[in-house]
Amino acid sequence: MVCCTIICMRILAMIPARMGSKRIVRKNVRYMAGQPLISYAMSLAAQSKAFDQIWVNSEEPVFGEIGKQFGIRYHARPAELANDIATNREFTYEFLKQHDCDFLVMVNSTSPVLRVQTIMHFVNFVKRDEYDTVLSVVSERAETFFKEQPLNFSLGEKRPSQALEPTQKVVWALTAWRRSTFLKLQESGECPVFGGRLSTFEIPKDEACDLDTEEDWRIAEGILLSRQRPFPQKYFESIQL
Amino acid sequence: MVCCTIICMRILAMIPARMGSKRIVRKNVRYMAGQPLISYAMSLAAQSKAFDQIWVNSEEPVFGEIGKQFGIRYHARPAELANDIATNREFTYEFLKQHDCDFLVMVNSTSPVLRVQTIMHFVNFVKRDEYDTVLSVVSERAETFFKEQPLNFSLGEKRPSQALEPTQKVVWALTAWRRSTFLKLQESGECPVFGGRLSTFEIPKDEACDLDTEEDWRIAEGILLSRQRPFPQKYFESIQL
Repeated sequence: MVCCTIICMRILAMIPARMGSKRIVRKNVRYMAGQPLISYAMSLAAQSKAFDQIWVNSEEPVFGEIGKQFGIRYHARPAELANDIATNREFTYEFLKQHDCDFLVMVNSTSPVLRVQTIMHFVNFVKRDEYDTVLSVVSERAETFFKEQPLNFSLGEKRPSQALEPTQKVVWALTAWRRSTFLKLQESGECPVFGGRLSTFEIPKDEACDLDTEEDWRIAEGILLSRQRPFPQKYFESIQL
Repeated sequence: MVCCTIICMRILAMIPARMGSKRIVRKNVRYMAGQPLISYAMSLAAQSKAFDQIWVNSEEPVFGEIGKQFGIRYHARPAELANDIATNREFTYEFLKQHDCDFLVMVNSTSPVLRVQTIMHFVNFVKRDEYDTVLSVVSERAETFFKEQPLNFSLGEKRPSQALEPTQKVVWALTAWRRSTFLKLQESGECPVFGGRLSTFEIPKDEACDLDTEEDWRIAEGILLSRQRPFPQKYFESIQL
């Protein structure tokens, strides 16, 4: 019975999906490299087989329809939590109150470039049960300024980038919360988003993207395309070589 | 004569190009989205019409050959500055000793996703003559950890990303050095790379990329592809909508 905590742990996935995105209009139903954006997160979560249940959390039943083909359940988000003012924290709380689990993993629809394997590794890490909140991050070793000052390098020396202290950027591709901690903090008026024992989890940099602008959209689409149809390696050979 | 400083300013571009890259083999002559990697930097620098002269700095004459079609000159890098140990600083110093100018702009071949306009804006900024060194950076507003501590956010509060203090990552796509400052610092044994009055210059995030791994290569190729052949905007329309 010792390992029961791990075996019996109940982990849900929640994919938030609004219809009314602003900067990129209706992005969740817009086609990216051949399929609606939302379908990537749905398909990845389903393929990972890492979750006891997968839910799409939306005010718009069409996302329930799309989810059906992936075996995904539909959580009808109350209209008052689907406007521009409602926060992630509020709709996550509303969801958690209704669904019992040990951990909730939020899989973001704006991360179509995630890989199934990364979801599996992430959930295995969560299952080690050492943390209450796990944030996906991308680690980078590059000279970085913060508040106009060098953060991880000195102006008097150029070091190879491998020698620099990395920064870790939270990318929100995958986020795990322990349900009990989240509920307790939210109900006591504290912020549950980074609550309890906190850990980061590094994901590969080509599995994180922003989708705020048309440029972002094209980068993500480009990453997907280049995975689908990689170019053959070819080199320029001069007659002089 | 007041504006003569600006009008007569002599600005050279230098594109460093080694044949012996390690992690991605011979990357400068490898085809990316239809043309050898090095040709992107060459073509962009030439199209910008921002430079008095453009030089490719290499131990390998084939890069001189490739450069000819863009009107680019060939600077033969001494063999001892073309190995893995030689630093950027050393070959830049060797180049600057031989070529008179007010400013040198290093255009990196590993930034094929730059846009011509960005080079023009960068050089116009350099021409304002207020700084000795100008570094291209990408600015990002995302929750960031440094040395396992929150850098620009508090664990007690989730703020919208627009409200976060940005980090600025040096990307080395474009770097400008005032020749006189660079030579003086190098010859006095100081590091010239971040020398003198230093400024950052923000470039759009889709114009910076790494090319250290095959994944990086595919991201850059994907960005180029999606610019060349943008997909038509298309949306999923359910029968229930």
